[in-house]
Amino acid sequence: MSQPDPLRRCIVQLSRLPGVGERTAARYAYWLLRQPPAVAEELGQAILTLSASMTRCSVCCDVAAQDPCRRCADPDRDDGLICVVERPQDITAIERSGEFRGRFHVLDGAISPMEGVGPDQLTVRQLLARLSGGAREVLVATDPDVEGDATALYLARLIKPLGLRVTRLAHGIAVGTELEYADRSSVARALEHRREL
Amino acid sequence: MSQPDPLRRCIVQLSRLPGVGERTAARYAYWLLRQPPAVAEELGQAILTLSASMTRCSVCCDVAAQDPCRRCADPDRDDGLICVVERPQDITAIERSGEFRGRFHVLDGAISPMEGVGPDQLTVRQLLARLSGGAREVLVATDPDVEGDATALYLARLIKPLGLRVTRLAHGIAVGTELEYADRSSVARALEHRREL
Repeated sequence: MSQPDPLRRCIVQLSRLPGVGERTAARYAYWLLRQPPAVAEELGQAILTLSASMTRCSVCCDVAAQDPCRRCADPDRDDGLICVVERPQDITAIERSGEFRGRFHVLDGAISPMEGVGPDQLTVRQLLARLSGGAREVLVATDPDVEGDATALYLARLIKPLGLRVTRLAHGIAVGTELEYADRSSVARALEHRREL
Repeated sequence: MSQPDPLRRCIVQLSRLPGVGERTAARYAYWLLRQPPAVAEELGQAILTLSASMTRCSVCCDVAAQDPCRRCADPDRDDGLICVVERPQDITAIERSGEFRGRFHVLDGAISPMEGVGPDQLTVRQLLARLSGGAREVLVATDPDVEGDATALYLARLIKPLGLRVTRLAHGIAVGTELEYADRSSVARALEHRREL
């Protein structure tokens, strides 16, 4: 403990961030000390405001500044199509494509018996409650891994009997990737889901 | 800009940290949102306190909670030996060794004509002012690179004529490193500075 207390305290707090160890935290803190005071001021305030002003949308379960969130309140989106994602960040990825104008639903994870995450720990109940509002299709955009696949299958079994379409994001070789350099799992998916021409 | 404003603002601020891009900043922010509000609260406050409560020690130029800093105010340290480091963090490394009980001086960088850093941008003036206070030896602990070496040489030329010893931290093969795996520069230093047995 050779650093003075406020510095020490800041390093300890910063090192709680995911993937940040003591050294990286110290690097951040010393960097902040070398900047004009406004930099730490703005960062500190932004973090405080974050915890104070963000809530969850009671419709889509996304993190949001108001409830319902901007996307759920937007009348121009298609109520018939609901894209289900694991995490709030995944929404950004879908939105960036510019190809989706439906609604979203944040599951808050994926089913993982190994980690004790079942449907009850996810927002499946809230998703089901939304489906009576004119939905035609649920597009499951969970990750292409064991948990994401299991979750997609679980949702399909649950929702299809209600008379809705359940679709899954296509997985395969990423656009821009040469076949030679594509990873094994992506090639396997690309073969499995090959399309008729 | 598909994230709500306070989140967006927090990500922008976090991405100013050194080595933190937009993605890492988003990872930090979303992680904070998943924690109990106290976590963001404590981190935000720690960062605000940092900028408000830290100052510079007018003696050693280290970042400090008070002026003079704890180390400069400590009567048990040897005034005769001053260890000169480039950055405040370097003090921690020296202190960790448990082998040094002298004073410190933070240069605030190293001489680098390429980056326009000369002695005037460093705390050389403050260092010289301290030397009349009973100092016998200045131990230069700048980095073993071009800038650190140049700075050490510059300080030696400046201080030796005052009748003080000027020493440099030993560089060579790190303890615990097998010769086979030592990097080229360290081996070169170890050869150059070989000691008589």
